[in-house]
Amino acid sequence: MISSNKTNAIEFKTKYDYYLNMVNTALTGLIIEKDSPEKSIYKAMNYSLMAGGKRLRPILTLAIGELLDASLDEIMPYCLAIEMIHTYSLIHDDLPSMDNDDYRRGRLTNHKVFGQAKAILAGDALLNYAFEYMLQNALNMQTDKSEDKKYNIEANVKAMSFIAQASGVNGMIGGQVVDIESEGIEITQKQLEYIHKKKTGALIKAAIMVPAILEKVDNTKKRALERYSANIGLAFQVKDDILDLEGDFKLLGKDIGKDENISKSTYISLYGIDVSREILRELIDGAVESLEIFDGNTCFLKDLAHYIAEREI
Amino acid sequence: MISSNKTNAIEFKTKYDYYLNMVNTALTGLIIEKDSPEKSIYKAMNYSLMAGGKRLRPILTLAIGELLDASLDEIMPYCLAIEMIHTYSLIHDDLPSMDNDDYRRGRLTNHKVFGQAKAILAGDALLNYAFEYMLQNALNMQTDKSEDKKYNIEANVKAMSFIAQASGVNGMIGGQVVDIESEGIEITQKQLEYIHKKKTGALIKAAIMVPAILEKVDNTKKRALERYSANIGLAFQVKDDILDLEGDFKLLGKDIGKDENISKSTYISLYGIDVSREILRELIDGAVESLEIFDGNTCFLKDLAHYIAEREI
Repeated sequence: MISSNKTNAIEFKTKYDYYLNMVNTALTGLIIEKDSPEKSIYKAMNYSLMAGGKRLRPILTLAIGELLDASLDEIMPYCLAIEMIHTYSLIHDDLPSMDNDDYRRGRLTNHKVFGQAKAILAGDALLNYAFEYMLQNALNMQTDKSEDKKYNIEANVKAMSFIAQASGVNGMIGGQVVDIESEGIEITQKQLEYIHKKKTGALIKAAIMVPAILEKVDNTKKRALERYSANIGLAFQVKDDILDLEGDFKLLGKDIGKDENISKSTYISLYGIDVSREILRELIDGAVESLEIFDGNTCFLKDLAHYIAEREI
Repeated sequence: MISSNKTNAIEFKTKYDYYLNMVNTALTGLIIEKDSPEKSIYKAMNYSLMAGGKRLRPILTLAIGELLDASLDEIMPYCLAIEMIHTYSLIHDDLPSMDNDDYRRGRLTNHKVFGQAKAILAGDALLNYAFEYMLQNALNMQTDKSEDKKYNIEANVKAMSFIAQASGVNGMIGGQVVDIESEGIEITQKQLEYIHKKKTGALIKAAIMVPAILEKVDNTKKRALERYSANIGLAFQVKDDILDLEGDFKLLGKDIGKDENISKSTYISLYGIDVSREILRELIDGAVESLEIFDGNTCFLKDLAHYIAEREI
């Protein structure tokens, strides 16, 4: 999975699976398909939320949380909310009027199974529930006197506010707007980076910064984490472009070669494959370097950067 | 505008316009169309948000706020957030895969002007911004030491949490799910009320309860306001059904006779026009009665209940 050596690779995989299991366990039962007139929406929400996926964002939150000695129990609601927001964005992006994708994570996209109306509502419902869940959680933390909570309500509101900005018009949604408007026209590297920074980068950054906000880290650590997130966010997208060119449908679970078909500007179309690989390598090096200032164990987060560059899914 | 007498009617209209002006002034400039690559989304958001409309929900919040002696400055952000959530729900409801409406508030629907992709994103953006704006406001209130704030951060989180529940799967979205699934099939009165209580009623209830939550009213007042909101919420919908039958496109600004065309169950199809009018009258009477327990001036809120029954738009 990663390049350095076999022992590292096994350690990384073990840790990744440990976090992945934590996230998937928490996601299971998050949305109960209770018997009510609107029960079909729960099914549509869970169809996409429980479709697997790398869970990169919540795993980043947990790993950064562990590095910062954060309370993992208290950051878990943010992991789930961010994954719900990510999932809603995929459901809406896949719609016929947007990217018109039939496959996602190896299965039919939400609207192919539930129809467009339900898919739009399932997306809306996941976005809304992300905030509903975080807000309810912040209140519960405040009123639950049975055990000490590490973060007060103000810290929790700061975390929610950061996530809301990341997923909104100045973040993810803004990126998607520029992305769909750029289809079929040639754009510059600056414009491509602008899209990625917002469309994918903003929520990845939120996943990384939430534990830092809750733990009130100093400015040096804050800047280091911002650099780490900027680098892996962009690296993730460069790798996505590479995978769209030479990935394997069976592994990826979504159509490949799509970017070229719809004349979408990518790192490949701008630089070609070799330079794109070089950019990717530099981004990963920068991500790894940014973690040097931390005293704690940063092996997993460094390996995660390599994993992003070398993943086949 | 209302039946009682002319002086009352003028007083009501003056007060309504006063609140309306407050809301519209605050909405203007809420979403700045700044010059950025994603600027088209601001235009699409504002197109629907600034399309006029009755502003029933925020006006309810302000009027209840005044009755409860709440800080109108501090409840205004909730007025705007609720109106944004209401507007996003209209944009998505109007989409071809949902109700497929061409007109709304007298002008072309969002997707007819901006296309489906942009309309979906504008809806997403308004929902997201509602939470982004409320959360940012709650933080500003907490950190702004220049003047005393009436509500602490916990009260603000409670208000946000109530709104999130009202707009989510257990509220507005759930109602829309059951509504679209009920098209073309006959439903019972109970099912029809279930739909309305969630689809329209939940957010109207939130608009009414937010000042009550912030002001921490006692249970008697809470129950009275819940009854008022349940009655006017349902009355609003019964009147909508009547207007769909005999309203005027020029006044309504949307297609009429649509319910029958798509075999939608309504109060009219279940009871006929005369019984529907009787139900409407009883709901309004109940709404007016529920306000008797308040010492303050409830004239406007009572007139508002009558207005809901007698409106032509």
